Amino acid sequence: MTQTSLPESKMPVVPPRVLLGPGPSAAHPRVLQAMMSNMIGYLDPDFMLIMDEVSELLKRVFQTDESITLALSGTGSAGMEAGLNSLLEPDDTVVMCIYGFFCERMVEMAGRLGANVVPIRAPWGGPFPAEMLEEELKNHRNVKLVTAIHAETSTGVRQPLEDLSRLAKAHDALFMVDAVTSLGGNEVAVDDWDIDYCYSATQKCLGCPPGLSPVALSPRALDSVKSRAKKPTSWYLDLALNANYWGFDRVYHHTAPVSMILALREGLRIVLEEGLEERFARHHRNSLALWAGLEALGLDLVAPEEHRLDQITPFWIPEGVDDDRVRGMLLREYNIEIGKGLGEFAGKVWRVGLMGESSKSEYVLALLSALESILPREGFEVGPGAGVAAASRSLAGG
Amino acid sequence: MTQTSLPESKMPVVPPRVLLGPGPSAAHPRVLQAMMSNMIGYLDPDFMLIMDEVSELLKRVFQTDESITLALSGTGSAGMEAGLNSLLEPDDTVVMCIYGFFCERMVEMAGRLGANVVPIRAPWGGPFPAEMLEEELKNHRNVKLVTAIHAETSTGVRQPLEDLSRLAKAHDALFMVDAVTSLGGNEVAVDDWDIDYCYSATQKCLGCPPGLSPVALSPRALDSVKSRAKKPTSWYLDLALNANYWGFDRVYHHTAPVSMILALREGLRIVLEEGLEERFARHHRNSLALWAGLEALGLDLVAPEEHRLDQITPFWIPEGVDDDRVRGMLLREYNIEIGKGLGEFAGKVWRVGLMGESSKSEYVLALLSALESILPREGFEVGPGAGVAAASRSLAGG
Repeated sequence: MTQTSLPESKMPVVPPRVLLGPGPSAAHPRVLQAMMSNMIGYLDPDFMLIMDEVSELLKRVFQTDESITLALSGTGSAGMEAGLNSLLEPDDTVVMCIYGFFCERMVEMAGRLGANVVPIRAPWGGPFPAEMLEEELKNHRNVKLVTAIHAETSTGVRQPLEDLSRLAKAHDALFMVDAVTSLGGNEVAVDDWDIDYCYSATQKCLGCPPGLSPVALSPRALDSVKSRAKKPTSWYLDLALNANYWGFDRVYHHTAPVSMILALREGLRIVLEEGLEERFARHHRNSLALWAGLEALGLDLVAPEEHRLDQITPFWIPEGVDDDRVRGMLLREYNIEIGKGLGEFAGKVWRVGLMGESSKSEYVLALLSALESILPREGFEVGPGAGVAAASRSLAGG
Repeated sequence: MTQTSLPESKMPVVPPRVLLGPGPSAAHPRVLQAMMSNMIGYLDPDFMLIMDEVSELLKRVFQTDESITLALSGTGSAGMEAGLNSLLEPDDTVVMCIYGFFCERMVEMAGRLGANVVPIRAPWGGPFPAEMLEEELKNHRNVKLVTAIHAETSTGVRQPLEDLSRLAKAHDALFMVDAVTSLGGNEVAVDDWDIDYCYSATQKCLGCPPGLSPVALSPRALDSVKSRAKKPTSWYLDLALNANYWGFDRVYHHTAPVSMILALREGLRIVLEEGLEERFARHHRNSLALWAGLEALGLDLVAPEEHRLDQITPFWIPEGVDDDRVRGMLLREYNIEIGKGLGEFAGKVWRVGLMGESSKSEYVLALLSALESILPREGFEVGPGAGVAAASRSLAGG
């Protein structure tokens, strides 16, 4: 028999962190407390009431009356895969608007499914121009699906969606949107923007731990899943089966992750207690302060201001400054996590996330103070206190 | 804009439950407390230490030195799908030993993948005879995979695995085992039984909430995934990509579900603190008491005693007794959940789970007392106190 004794733990307690990376962001203490609940059965009538409530809360946060809403038992990437796997059959044409790392993940996933993938690549760092989609759509008949990402976490760009949606619909295609980083921190209007499948994640602007992917599925998208010639290759992420369990039928599919669903319920309640508009305003206010502070330190932001995300801010690493060493100092000396660059931005940018419970003015000031101390040690001179001063002025409304 | 106010909750607090169904079982209070931790980044070096620890603890619980171990970010069904999706390519032959509801789920999943699925169906309620596999394997060349379920939750049968494994290996096939219901409650010896892919779940005998699927993957299975002609259709559940993140490379795959991983770590530590052998003995002791009590009430168990699972006990619903009504009374009057029948046993059996933190003598006695009160109301007479008396004698070693 193999070794079965108890090994000593090298990290018995999770160290405190100021989480200003791409997520997980901080979880709200009430959310953590919600997870302390005892378990309950996945078909218990009282648990059904809780699932109904989560579904209703999601409708309000996704701003939809039309779509069915539920939480898939996986992270945001599971939401991405569920959409592609359920909406696409082999050889279906999917036109993908590509302008960052996570857009490329969609290409990878759809390729594995044997779809006819048509990526349209725009330069990283700005929004995707609707005209490029308009031109490309002229080359295709029977486009099944058009995809876009609302908040590209790799570039920090907020993508306008209305024009892309209109073009997709004009070609009778379904429109799928990644709202992983935006939901709860920025307006996501599923009905107004006519989105057929929208998926998100719990660990960014919803103030919950990672582990679930909230989704909204339009009647048209659900019809499309139900009328497939062949079933999706994934049983676990089959949107029709998941909708049967979350919806009226309550057909057993898999054991629901009870604690995560309770966490999500509490997180969504907190979002609505704060108020969507107030929450979006808070995200914007703290990001404005961050941007003012970074610029006062002489750092250059990746995205142009009019297209910047409030959730995550990539900025260029100054020449001669060591990526890993600075992030290591932030983590070891200040317990602050920021994100590294991904894909073609790897080693070139840092990314600061201010999402959900991590979007707080005190964290903005702490990060700027830390950078003011660290960057000169790397040979990048900054005006002492300049970042904090600019951020404080911004927060004071100046 | 749609309604964005906060709706009133119909079930603000999860009601207490004695969870004696097929899972989730009760979570250990220390496990719930572990989920109160603050978040931490998925590439934080301190979180890597925690993942290493989980991996090491899993090796001990799966009793393997050879396999790599990790936890997939989904429930047990995700573990099932990850194995089939990663190990099978279209047209690969998979021979499936079928003797219950969850075996049929494997058939459904593998069919969606375009595999050449060869189900061998044995009657429900007993173990699968190795001779049937031996015979069937003679009809095939190039069998890629043989599958079995260690603990069929629908029938309550413990399946001997050594002979099936030996036959699979004699035909140069990989051997995949579902240990969802057995891991942590019954011996699961991945190395000794030469299992190439073994998956489980957190909410049964590991005392954790549902949401993760711990898996063990042999070097041979990993080679097989890495040498595929085409990538698996699933990116999210691709075992090679998940192994890259959990293993030495630490390549970012998806945001790890931090709280669930912390819960699993605590659950696994508790398993090893109790000791595997002691824990298996506890499960057996409480099940013996349950069986004695049910039989003393004149109830018939589905599985023959020599093949009975300690984790879950299906027994026949007496004629004339209403399935839903009795389970409803147990839930509403006693807060006790038991499981209903699945598939061909739907409406015919009840299933009592005694798993992990739910395997306690007091719960056995509470259930038997409740049945003694309820069944006569349904016209099924039982000797007053007979079940509790028999169970108590069994617990006292009589």
